[in-house]
Amino acid sequence: MRGAKSKPFYVGVDVGGTKILTGVFDASLKLLGAVKMKTRAEEGAEAVLDRIESSVREVVAEQGLRMADVRAVGLGVPGVVRRGRVVCATNLGWTDLPIIQIMKRRLRRPVFADNDCNLFALGVHTVEFKGRPRHLLGVFLGTGIGGGIIIDGKLHVGFTQGAGEFGLLILDRTRPKTGFGIRGTFETLASRKGMHWRLCQEIAKGGKTVLTTELGRRLQGLRSRHLLQAWDDRDALVRRVVREVAQDVGLAVASLISAFGPEYVVLGGGVMEALKEPMLPIIRKTAAQHVLPGTLTGVKIVTSKMGDAGGITGAAVWARSQVSA
Amino acid sequence: MRGAKSKPFYVGVDVGGTKILTGVFDASLKLLGAVKMKTRAEEGAEAVLDRIESSVREVVAEQGLRMADVRAVGLGVPGVVRRGRVVCATNLGWTDLPIIQIMKRRLRRPVFADNDCNLFALGVHTVEFKGRPRHLLGVFLGTGIGGGIIIDGKLHVGFTQGAGEFGLLILDRTRPKTGFGIRGTFETLASRKGMHWRLCQEIAKGGKTVLTTELGRRLQGLRSRHLLQAWDDRDALVRRVVREVAQDVGLAVASLISAFGPEYVVLGGGVMEALKEPMLPIIRKTAAQHVLPGTLTGVKIVTSKMGDAGGITGAAVWARSQVSA
Repeated sequence: MRGAKSKPFYVGVDVGGTKILTGVFDASLKLLGAVKMKTRAEEGAEAVLDRIESSVREVVAEQGLRMADVRAVGLGVPGVVRRGRVVCATNLGWTDLPIIQIMKRRLRRPVFADNDCNLFALGVHTVEFKGRPRHLLGVFLGTGIGGGIIIDGKLHVGFTQGAGEFGLLILDRTRPKTGFGIRGTFETLASRKGMHWRLCQEIAKGGKTVLTTELGRRLQGLRSRHLLQAWDDRDALVRRVVREVAQDVGLAVASLISAFGPEYVVLGGGVMEALKEPMLPIIRKTAAQHVLPGTLTGVKIVTSKMGDAGGITGAAVWARSQVSA
Repeated sequence: MRGAKSKPFYVGVDVGGTKILTGVFDASLKLLGAVKMKTRAEEGAEAVLDRIESSVREVVAEQGLRMADVRAVGLGVPGVVRRGRVVCATNLGWTDLPIIQIMKRRLRRPVFADNDCNLFALGVHTVEFKGRPRHLLGVFLGTGIGGGIIIDGKLHVGFTQGAGEFGLLILDRTRPKTGFGIRGTFETLASRKGMHWRLCQEIAKGGKTVLTTELGRRLQGLRSRHLLQAWDDRDALVRRVVREVAQDVGLAVASLISAFGPEYVVLGGGVMEALKEPMLPIIRKTAAQHVLPGTLTGVKIVTSKMGDAGGITGAAVWARSQVSA
C-alpha cells in the first residue's frame, strides 16, 4: 500500500472551538487518514498545544509514516493570525500566541498557520473546485460566522491580514442587543449563537417549540442537529426562525456579491450542513432580490460538499503552497 | 510650451448624471486642460454621445493638439460596463449601449470604458497615492453611492465585472421604504438621495429646518452645498441627519474593512467634499467601534483631495494602461 502514496506528505490541522481535526495528505492532496480530539480550550493553551502535537504525531504514525516524511504542517485557527502569531482567538481564549514558533519547536517540521475560514475557502477552491474559479468567496455558518476570499485564484488576506471577516458585516443599523458580539453584525443575527438568541427571544415572548422539552427554556446546548430535528418535526417556531435567518444570510450574500463580484459563493459550516435544504433556496431568492439586475448572471451560490474535511484540506494546501513557493 | 508636454496624450471623460467632464493628460498623467458640459441625459443617448465627442475634440484642440496626438480615450460611466457595453446606467437612462464601438467610430481613436467609481478609485490610487497602497477601497458619496477596489495594486472588477457596488451593501435588514433603490441598502440611507428622504421624513413629522425656506417642504433641488450651508447655520435638524448619515457611512466602512482588509479607505464624491469636516470624525469613530479589536492598526480612512479631477484622471489612467498592456 505504501508505494501508492505519493511523497511528500502534508498534515492539516483544524483547531476548532470544540474539536481538533487533523489529517495527513499525500502530495496530490489525497486525504490518507484523520483523527479527531476534543479541544477542551478551558484547560488552557498549553494543554491544547499538547493535543495538537499528539494528534499530528498520531495521524502520521497511523499511516506508517515518520515525522521526517512530513514536508510541512498547516494549522487553521479560529481567529486573527498575523506574522505567525494568533493575535486573538476568542473561542479558544488565546491572545498573542506565537503558535508557529511553538509548534515548530515541538514538531521539528515547517509549520504554517492562518485563519480557519481562510484555509477552508482555500481547500474548497483548490480541491472541490480544482482551482478553477478566479474569484470565490467562502461563507461559513457555525457557532460564529467566518469567511475566506479567493481573488485571482489566490487567498486574499489584505493589508490587515484579516480580510474575509464576513461575520462582521453590519446587517442591521438599528443594532439589536443580542448580548454577544458586535451589535447589528451578520454573526450576531445568523450564526448558531444568533439563532439561539432569536429562539430565546421568541420563547420569552411566549413562543412554543419542541426544543424546550429536551433543552429547557434557555435552550442550553443547542446544536445544529437539534434545529434540523425540529425542522423535520414541523416545529412552527423553529421553521419561522430558520426562514428568517436564511433571509438574513441572503442579504449578506447579496452584499458580498455586489462588493466582490465573485463567480462562486460557497456556503459551509455546521448550520449550512444541517439546514441546507430549507435555507439554500431562500438564500438564493433573497440574494437575487437585493443585487442590481443582471449581476447574478453566471454567479453560483452553492454549498460545499467537503464538510469537516474542508478545514484540514485547506490547512494542508496552505502548508504545501508555502514550502513550494 | 508645447515642448514641455510629454507625448503621447490621453483623454479622460467622466460622464456624470448632470455633467460631462473631459480632460486631456500628458504621458505622465499631468492634467493639461479640461472642459465641462451639461449632460442633459433627458435629450437621449445620441445627444449625450454628441456632447462627449465634441467635448473630446474641444479639449484636445484647446491644447493645440490634433486627435492624432491622442493615444487613447477613457470613459467613466455611472453604471455597469461589461465587454465594451453599458449594460445599464440608471441616471443616464441607458441600457445595453455599445459605447466603445460607437465612440471608436466617432473619434477614430482607441476607446476604453468602465464604471465611473472604479475609474475614480484607479485615478486616486495611481495619482494621489502614487500607486503605492496594495489594497485600497474608494467609496463615493454623491447623488448615489458607488465604489472601486484596488487589490494587489490592480483594479478589481470581479467575475461579474461589477465589483465595488458598495451602495448595494445591505445596512438595514428591516428594509425601510424609501421609495427608490433597493430597500435597506447603504445607498438608500446615506447618499444625497437618502439624506433628502431622511430630511423629508422629518419635515413630514413636523421637523423644522432652514432648508424649507429656499427649497420648499419637499426640498426640491437639494444639493450638497445646501446641506453645508445649513450645517454652518447650525440648523439642528440638518445637523442631526448629517450625523446619523455619517454613522451609517461608518457602519458601511467597518463592514468593508472587515471584508476586504484594505490599507486605505478613500472617501470622495460631492457629499463628502461638502461635509467632510462634520462627517469624517464620526465615520472614523463608528468604523472603529464595529470591527474586531486590532483590525484598524495602520488602516487609513481618508478623503480624496482630487475632487472632480479624480474621475477624468482615472479614465485617462485606464486608457493608458489598456494601450500599454
